[in-house]
Amino acid sequence: MKSPKNDLIGKTFEALFTLEDIRELIRQSLPGGLSAEEEISFKQKTSRLRDIVESLEAGGAGNNQALPSVVDGIGLRFREEGYINIQPIQAAGRLTPEARKALISYGDGYSTCDTCRKPFRLDKISRPPIADFHDELAEFVNMDVARVVPGARRAFQAVTSSLVEKGDSVIVSALAHYTEFLSVEAAGGLIREVSLDENNLVTADAVAEKIEAVTRETDRTPKLVFIDHFDYQFANEHDVEGIAKVAHQYDIPLLYNGAYTVGIKPVDGKKIGADFVVGSGHKSMASAAPSGVLATTDEYADLIFRTTQMTGDVTGKKFGIKEVEMMGCTLMGGTLLSMMASFPHVKKRTKNWDEEVKKSNYFLKEFLKIEGNEIVSEYPRKHTLTKVDTSGTFDKVAKNNKRRGYFLSDEMSKRGIVGMFSGATRQWKLNTYGLSWEKIHFLSDAFKEVAEKYELNVN
Amino acid sequence: MKSPKNDLIGKTFEALFTLEDIRELIRQSLPGGLSAEEEISFKQKTSRLRDIVESLEAGGAGNNQALPSVVDGIGLRFREEGYINIQPIQAAGRLTPEARKALISYGDGYSTCDTCRKPFRLDKISRPPIADFHDELAEFVNMDVARVVPGARRAFQAVTSSLVEKGDSVIVSALAHYTEFLSVEAAGGLIREVSLDENNLVTADAVAEKIEAVTRETDRTPKLVFIDHFDYQFANEHDVEGIAKVAHQYDIPLLYNGAYTVGIKPVDGKKIGADFVVGSGHKSMASAAPSGVLATTDEYADLIFRTTQMTGDVTGKKFGIKEVEMMGCTLMGGTLLSMMASFPHVKKRTKNWDEEVKKSNYFLKEFLKIEGNEIVSEYPRKHTLTKVDTSGTFDKVAKNNKRRGYFLSDEMSKRGIVGMFSGATRQWKLNTYGLSWEKIHFLSDAFKEVAEKYELNVN
Repeated sequence: MKSPKNDLIGKTFEALFTLEDIRELIRQSLPGGLSAEEEISFKQKTSRLRDIVESLEAGGAGNNQALPSVVDGIGLRFREEGYINIQPIQAAGRLTPEARKALISYGDGYSTCDTCRKPFRLDKISRPPIADFHDELAEFVNMDVARVVPGARRAFQAVTSSLVEKGDSVIVSALAHYTEFLSVEAAGGLIREVSLDENNLVTADAVAEKIEAVTRETDRTPKLVFIDHFDYQFANEHDVEGIAKVAHQYDIPLLYNGAYTVGIKPVDGKKIGADFVVGSGHKSMASAAPSGVLATTDEYADLIFRTTQMTGDVTGKKFGIKEVEMMGCTLMGGTLLSMMASFPHVKKRTKNWDEEVKKSNYFLKEFLKIEGNEIVSEYPRKHTLTKVDTSGTFDKVAKNNKRRGYFLSDEMSKRGIVGMFSGATRQWKLNTYGLSWEKIHFLSDAFKEVAEKYELNVN
Repeated sequence: MKSPKNDLIGKTFEALFTLEDIRELIRQSLPGGLSAEEEISFKQKTSRLRDIVESLEAGGAGNNQALPSVVDGIGLRFREEGYINIQPIQAAGRLTPEARKALISYGDGYSTCDTCRKPFRLDKISRPPIADFHDELAEFVNMDVARVVPGARRAFQAVTSSLVEKGDSVIVSALAHYTEFLSVEAAGGLIREVSLDENNLVTADAVAEKIEAVTRETDRTPKLVFIDHFDYQFANEHDVEGIAKVAHQYDIPLLYNGAYTVGIKPVDGKKIGADFVVGSGHKSMASAAPSGVLATTDEYADLIFRTTQMTGDVTGKKFGIKEVEMMGCTLMGGTLLSMMASFPHVKKRTKNWDEEVKKSNYFLKEFLKIEGNEIVSEYPRKHTLTKVDTSGTFDKVAKNNKRRGYFLSDEMSKRGIVGMFSGATRQWKLNTYGLSWEKIHFLSDAFKEVAEKYELNVN
């Protein structure tokens, strides 16, 4: 793929990479400064850097050079620089510049641990301010306690591993994410799905019925209810508050899966009635992967974040306050720092959620002007992730195109838009999260242009 | 702390951060290029960048400015640039320039997933070459199959969760890392420690005795033996081959914990007789955290990497070939790419292990010239991580110093050396891994200088 911004992009990355080479030279040198030999190498590199920067100032020199590789065999990734990216799961995970700076400075593995002191646990470290960040995270989702975890899935695992015994049932929605299945399977539990209503929604009534049915069938109350506030398939909004009430009527705790909410829209765990709030750093908190958050109430904190009780039979050793389900410390280094650096921006952006939804609906209104296009998700949208159906439009074009379904992603990428599932022309997903109004207009126009090119009716 | 290289360091980071701001501008712009308004902002930033680069060329201008912050509240981390870092667990995790470039380009959360196709699993992705990397990883430790995991601890957890039932015993060394304890505790197992011999070593005989004792006591054979090739306390080398033989005599699988070997010295899992080889990316593979590797044999692969068998009771849904203990995909984004980008260098550096050990021993020989200094680890060293005892030297000085034990880390950091546990003057650990001979000499001299300053005898 080639972007019209290739020159700028290429020079920007070249400069960044050259600076990393310079940085390496500094790292290799003695504390007193560069040696004469290192000085020579330094001069060569800074002089090269100056050339690159001059060329960048001149707009990349317009000479359309090949983009630099990261290393041999690993090409440059520049989707966010060169294109409008509507990939369904990448949108709200893309890093802020602050997170990228944190990754640069704190990339080394154990960078978080420079000032780790007793009691030697990640969430107690005060420089960088990791302890404060944990408090703020809990507050952010209005729960009592929070921990960072290597992905939302590891939060699910910690909860199921604590609550679910072999043979116990766990209630999930018929739209459950596969990681919910796996976390129940790993604990030896059984998945019981709640059916959807005619609008592809999970209702509180349906959850109640399922709890009753499972209890009758197994003679035991299910141990946990998982609910995705917005599911990953349609990003429809499900009645989390109603479902929490129902779960609690049966004394079952509720895990609120906020992989598609925490970090992009306000989430109030207490108001929802959630016992666990799970979020994904790399999906919705502008953070490096793998990252996520597990928050809970004081009621459940002692169980989920229980500390080790194991004692060595020979040494009598006990490992203090390390938490079993967390496997001790969880997110070291740049991954955590990227979460922390993005956090002020993330907190702020959740307040703009209505505007994000508005842009999503604006785009879809334009998209529907292509006669035959359909929205599979609930509409008007309450989210920026949407499943659309173009069976009546682009899929028909695909049937007579020598590139088949790929014609659409080809056409879009020629127009600077990526992130559609290549080859898909029937039902597919896109996400407009974080796109400016200018990009929303550009995106709308691009679809209509392609439709017109292939003689579809555009109203 | 101030480093004499502060000017260079400050300007290098300022340039990197300014480039991230420029990059952000490119990200925000439309695919066609910068708008007139963006162009103005671009010019301002590139002009600022040019100034920084010119100042860098001039050696940082010598004006000793304050170092830039990452963001408000998160200070710059520059220990590797400004100092010689002898922190025990950070040495072999520090990133290569290649890894840092990979983090820059692939930092966005789901950057690995751009070309994810059926069967939708991380280790099957071919661009970037993640699938090949998995094959190379298995080959690197001479095992049959490998997966990346978010830290060695998550590898332990996958193995105990697969093999250990409630009440089963697991044999570990009396020097076991706390994450081994936690992984057994999470699975509901019991820890049984093997005593050390008089040299702080775990012998094959001691393991055999412990297996016998536990079997007598519990009427069941232990389910797993963990052995750290080099333990985290002394980094003494334990007889992994002999212990593997013993474990196999009792039909117990062996988990080889290579957190302090995989990535720095050659590891041949088959020759050792390991059933599982675990490595840590951020500890020993020059990779971002959390990262690690779990490798196993064909015999155990089907169990440890078993795919989901769960079926939705309503939808009949099954989630293909997602692996239960991996929770599906494991290491997305820059974390994995940092491992991959460092890997060619990591493979190469394991061949220089003897030289690394030589430098470690050279330093310690000099260190022992301070009369009263002692080595607690086995000596001569077979590793670069060492526990030393300065009770007879620096600790005596500390008793009469108003900064108490902190005087030593103060004195060392004034000389450009960091990573000692602040305040520790009795037994403490250091790691010389990756230091050039120049740095080794510098380090040796610094300790002797401080000793002389405080009138200790130096031979």
